[in-house]
Amino acid sequence: MPGGEGELREMELLERIFLANSALTARHPHVVVPPGDDMALLRLSAGLDGAALLVAVDSVVEGRHYRRGTPIERVGRKAVNRNLSDVAAMAARPLACLAAVVLPRSMPRDEADRLHEAVRAAGESGDCPLIGGDVSMHQAADGPLVCTVTVLACPWDGDGRTITRSGARVGDRVYVTGVLGRTVNADGFGHHLDFEPRIDAARALLEILGERLHAMIDVSDGLGRDAGHIATRSDVCLRLDAAALPRRNGAGWQEAMSDGEDYELLFTATGEVPASVAGIPVTCIGEVCAAGAGPRVAVEVEGVTIDGGALGWEHRGDGARSEDLP
Amino acid sequence: MPGGEGELREMELLERIFLANSALTARHPHVVVPPGDDMALLRLSAGLDGAALLVAVDSVVEGRHYRRGTPIERVGRKAVNRNLSDVAAMAARPLACLAAVVLPRSMPRDEADRLHEAVRAAGESGDCPLIGGDVSMHQAADGPLVCTVTVLACPWDGDGRTITRSGARVGDRVYVTGVLGRTVNADGFGHHLDFEPRIDAARALLEILGERLHAMIDVSDGLGRDAGHIATRSDVCLRLDAAALPRRNGAGWQEAMSDGEDYELLFTATGEVPASVAGIPVTCIGEVCAAGAGPRVAVEVEGVTIDGGALGWEHRGDGARSEDLP
Repeated sequence: MPGGEGELREMELLERIFLANSALTARHPHVVVPPGDDMALLRLSAGLDGAALLVAVDSVVEGRHYRRGTPIERVGRKAVNRNLSDVAAMAARPLACLAAVVLPRSMPRDEADRLHEAVRAAGESGDCPLIGGDVSMHQAADGPLVCTVTVLACPWDGDGRTITRSGARVGDRVYVTGVLGRTVNADGFGHHLDFEPRIDAARALLEILGERLHAMIDVSDGLGRDAGHIATRSDVCLRLDAAALPRRNGAGWQEAMSDGEDYELLFTATGEVPASVAGIPVTCIGEVCAAGAGPRVAVEVEGVTIDGGALGWEHRGDGARSEDLP
Repeated sequence: MPGGEGELREMELLERIFLANSALTARHPHVVVPPGDDMALLRLSAGLDGAALLVAVDSVVEGRHYRRGTPIERVGRKAVNRNLSDVAAMAARPLACLAAVVLPRSMPRDEADRLHEAVRAAGESGDCPLIGGDVSMHQAADGPLVCTVTVLACPWDGDGRTITRSGARVGDRVYVTGVLGRTVNADGFGHHLDFEPRIDAARALLEILGERLHAMIDVSDGLGRDAGHIATRSDVCLRLDAAALPRRNGAGWQEAMSDGEDYELLFTATGEVPASVAGIPVTCIGEVCAAGAGPRVAVEVEGVTIDGGALGWEHRGDGARSEDLP
């Protein structure tokens, strides 16, 4: 494992932020779901019937989330759709978004306009209007573009139900929408730029499964790590079958488990689950077991059980993928 | 005036974003105050009695909003307090904040922790808990730190009143809290890092003045430009008296008009206004007149009237101050 004492790791920092905020809901009772899920949840007035608001923020950084030379329209679209994927993961309804961009000073005005138009259009396309923003310029002519999008959402229905990572129950089956892996082409483009957020599929799951839909997350870090998030927050174990994973373009099971940026829905549910929702295939890939001495995410590969919880983005500063594959 | 056809100007881009969204409230009726004020305002359920939510986002960029070598605690604090100043400008109540940071890869872990703690503490100090965030690392070891804070707020009272830039009326007087100018010391530190957002003063103004408080903005771009925002949005003219401007540390009137980053409240009101609110002095600096052929912001300087609307940050890419002083 690379990385010494002082090395920055995104995931570790994020986890520390969550820990530092564990007392948050006690001090601030309007914070219902604190940091640590796909979105935070607030209640805007006292009591359980106060309006529920979900909110999340996510940055896309040049050289980190896309390579220099990527058409600016695809950058703006990705910045919005990553956030809409978080809205889908909560089975929520988009309300509005804001964008804060930091631009290289040498960027032509036309390109800045196209970025704004891409962000606006992606928001409109997701019924999530762009309602505010901020524009800053780097001191350096070639400073790396940063596009930070904040998304606001609310529950679809009057009952105010949203789906968190923490509701998985022993006996649930584990499902994923769409196909996994090979999300970055050799040229640096591909699915990670052009995916469709699964807002409609998530809403359909909520309507069809009702109370039987227990936990959900979007696959961004990689199936292994994201399954680990559900397992840890729900205090269960997820057993996954490598042979069952739906794969993109002949991807191997390792790629399906660890490439990340699939932006598909990973969920657990009980009872009957349809083979597709909103036109997107749904595949059963495992089951939820009681947490025990074994790994949080146990992957069955040709009769051998391996620890799948580390399969995914390492979230190191260099953007490298995990090399912890067996 | 510097700046050719293709040069990026932050202000111009922001204005174009506002224009592009002028049809927003028609398409999305839950957007009550669209881009163009200190914060956007949403209604979370149908009808005028739906819960009102205010939201804004603002980035602090190394080399642009603070110089390299600034203690990281002051950077984190500024990033939060700039947003709280927007909440004050709407006379609103902070609810929660989120922070998305992009860090140089070489940043020691300890420094990243201190940044997070500063953001968290500044939020708590403003009763605005940090409820979510995102951490990314630049590809470059020395990439410029970006700290983007999103702030959520709501009206203080059940009547849901907030104060926008567009309510100034002919006959109002123009007031400012605190003192202005010399916000950046020779060493690059100073008031622009260490200001206190005027949340309490704004709330006191709302309580004391009630319906007589008509328009408000926080002074971030510079008094001249920010007065121009009120004048334009309210379709009036603001006449200011250079001799009346309250100044910091012997600043000249030009500095008081144009330095920016004062984060004081500029407001218009009718009737009696107290000489201080929440311990902060309030100074009358002019009056609201009907818009005419003259400048939107007319500044009286020793018997001569000059156009004050351009006095302030030029919002060019190079971070230079305006040199349009007479």
